[in-house]
Amino acid sequence: MQAYSQFSISQLEQELAELMRQYEVCKAKGLKLDMSRGKPNSRQLDLSDGLTATVGGDMGFGAENGQDCRNYGMMDGLREAKALFTEMLGVPVEQIIIGGNSSLNLMYDTIARAMLFGVPGSDKPWCKERRVKFICPTPGYDRHFAICQHFGIDMIAVDMTPAGPDMNRVSTLVRSDPAIKGIWCVPKYSNPTGYTCSRRTVERFAELRPAAQDFRIFWDNAYCVHGFRETDDELACLMDELKKEGKEDMAFIFASTSKVSYAGAGLAAVGASPANIDFLKKQMSFQTIGSNKVNQLMHARFFRDFDGIRAHMKKHAELVRPKFDLVLETLERELGGLGIADWTSPNGGYFISFNTPDNCAKRAVELCGEAGVVVTPAGSAYPYGIDPRDRNIRIAPTYPTMDELRQATELFCLCVRIAAVERFLTISV
Amino acid sequence: MQAYSQFSISQLEQELAELMRQYEVCKAKGLKLDMSRGKPNSRQLDLSDGLTATVGGDMGFGAENGQDCRNYGMMDGLREAKALFTEMLGVPVEQIIIGGNSSLNLMYDTIARAMLFGVPGSDKPWCKERRVKFICPTPGYDRHFAICQHFGIDMIAVDMTPAGPDMNRVSTLVRSDPAIKGIWCVPKYSNPTGYTCSRRTVERFAELRPAAQDFRIFWDNAYCVHGFRETDDELACLMDELKKEGKEDMAFIFASTSKVSYAGAGLAAVGASPANIDFLKKQMSFQTIGSNKVNQLMHARFFRDFDGIRAHMKKHAELVRPKFDLVLETLERELGGLGIADWTSPNGGYFISFNTPDNCAKRAVELCGEAGVVVTPAGSAYPYGIDPRDRNIRIAPTYPTMDELRQATELFCLCVRIAAVERFLTISV
Repeated sequence: MQAYSQFSISQLEQELAELMRQYEVCKAKGLKLDMSRGKPNSRQLDLSDGLTATVGGDMGFGAENGQDCRNYGMMDGLREAKALFTEMLGVPVEQIIIGGNSSLNLMYDTIARAMLFGVPGSDKPWCKERRVKFICPTPGYDRHFAICQHFGIDMIAVDMTPAGPDMNRVSTLVRSDPAIKGIWCVPKYSNPTGYTCSRRTVERFAELRPAAQDFRIFWDNAYCVHGFRETDDELACLMDELKKEGKEDMAFIFASTSKVSYAGAGLAAVGASPANIDFLKKQMSFQTIGSNKVNQLMHARFFRDFDGIRAHMKKHAELVRPKFDLVLETLERELGGLGIADWTSPNGGYFISFNTPDNCAKRAVELCGEAGVVVTPAGSAYPYGIDPRDRNIRIAPTYPTMDELRQATELFCLCVRIAAVERFLTISV
Repeated sequence: MQAYSQFSISQLEQELAELMRQYEVCKAKGLKLDMSRGKPNSRQLDLSDGLTATVGGDMGFGAENGQDCRNYGMMDGLREAKALFTEMLGVPVEQIIIGGNSSLNLMYDTIARAMLFGVPGSDKPWCKERRVKFICPTPGYDRHFAICQHFGIDMIAVDMTPAGPDMNRVSTLVRSDPAIKGIWCVPKYSNPTGYTCSRRTVERFAELRPAAQDFRIFWDNAYCVHGFRETDDELACLMDELKKEGKEDMAFIFASTSKVSYAGAGLAAVGASPANIDFLKKQMSFQTIGSNKVNQLMHARFFRDFDGIRAHMKKHAELVRPKFDLVLETLERELGGLGIADWTSPNGGYFISFNTPDNCAKRAVELCGEAGVVVTPAGSAYPYGIDPRDRNIRIAPTYPTMDELRQATELFCLCVRIAAVERFLTISV
């Protein structure tokens, strides 16, 4: 296909007319499709059939230590549940706390506690600071940014590169500004780019010399076991690197089984240094008598160990890979060569990050919506929901069926083309 | 039996010698018993056999609204799970949020949010106030007081009477001091007294005229369905009374199934006015994508409705009542007439509140501990863990077996007698 930039105005006008004709045809179909959130499809959820049948009856509810999971006790979680997470978090069981079903909840609570009480190393609670700032790699995870916004934490956007956040800029920023208390990072198959931090990037995280004594890396390893291709990206262990630098306390590490077992009833966990974990446990002792232990037991029995999780994730991969392939093929077929878009092609995770020409993303999403295809709002992957170039759109291929996905992606491509042509025409006038 | 106060010094000395002889015999048995916490016994937990078998297989995971409980969505909980709580909370389903497995967690989070953001009606976050104070009916629930202490909230002790907190004092306090932002109350079968607020007390809660615009009643209805005798205490509906006074926003109401289904894997819920619930939902939307919905579905299917819960609680009553009877009979037999102790005799709940003579509780608990019987530390039921008269001990009869309970209570009585005689001798000198 010829690039739109080579089109004359009249060619563009002709193209727009043709695209709009196709769009009206699509619209008339009355589609109702959703590519907006990283939700597993029900066939993925079916992979955990039997999880709830691992307890009760003859199997009982006894943890490995003999305690009854139906009763109070074991605030920080079952040892066997923690053992599922050692590889994902890169810390031993002693340095793990099992939360409820949501790692978001653990992250929110960790920041809420920091606001109210600080973290080990803080002079005072963060809410008593004049300003608190976080570095936000962009495009990034909207819910991380929403937490910052909610707590009045200023967000400093730093570009996400294929090797991870731009560490030159991160290093300079944290060294110079003591108000910078943290950085978000989804280190593997990042939301939404699918990029994985290189070994050197992980090392550079550990080499940070923050001006703030109580600076923390919020390492959200949400997609650590979510590779779906032969080649799995390799992520270096942050805690190992931190140890080398004598900075074990500099990170909180999060993971969950939300996209392993059940998004609505998984397990979440946080791992950190002994000092950080002691601190969290002491604080949590006021908050809870412990998370749902029957669910912990179900997970420990169903997956048995990390190898069980790895084997389980291969089944997810079989279901997820074709969906990414379908989207990527459709994007290439419908948009390749037009010079109006680029997108990522990840080896795992839940998202494709898609860029339109500048100032076209909102319009493309609007067109999709009007034709019945819900896409994540443009700008979502940026602090305050504002993409300065209005070009990024997050595509979430997992939830729809293959048929729905085909229709949705084709419509999406059409909408991107329309938005681009409209934009070229505006500029040309 | 003759009252110890009538004993001569030499009689007291003789009594002490005899009691110590008995104590040494007990101690030699090497008991290892626990009457310290309100934990259900495993036979009570067995009553919920089958709960985890209500989902999966042919039964699937579909909520009444057709949504898949295994996936994301329904942040504030399943409608059918909410419906279990309408009677307990006294509000309609629209005014209920289902949390995780711990109402303590909901209470903690509600106060943490108030500290960080205030509540509807606040001028500013509570943490920006010079002082925040809570009224704490005493004896009361140690974990309520621990939350206050954790957040630096000053606690004002107000006596708990058989009709509920001393409302004359509560009314005067809240009217005069704008720093008083809240009051804790376990309105039915209160921890540890087992007292239930009278209708008039509930009305007086609603009639409060707090100086603080953002004053809140934290109504922890933990034992609302936990009567174990023919006669069940009747608790008026706080929300109904608040409505009459046009003060719906003045309360947060909490309940859970921790002592209905599983202490380690139940459901917790908060109910409040539409304004309060909207506020909580908005804040929670930053914190979580929703609590464990599979567990919600299990509970909704297992109990079906509030009648199901009521029927289930009758089975609990059959297991719990004999334990309370055993303790009460033993106390009467071993201590009646000695004039050294009084205790409550509740119709429900998990505790008996026991008073020694002044300045004897710590010593009695210490003696118990040395002989292998763990009792809740003396003073636990008071703010900062300090019972000004050192006389209150909380007895939790449910967890031990009947045999264990008999031994533990007999030893307890012996220790109380020793502590009392020692005290009388000290005073006499």
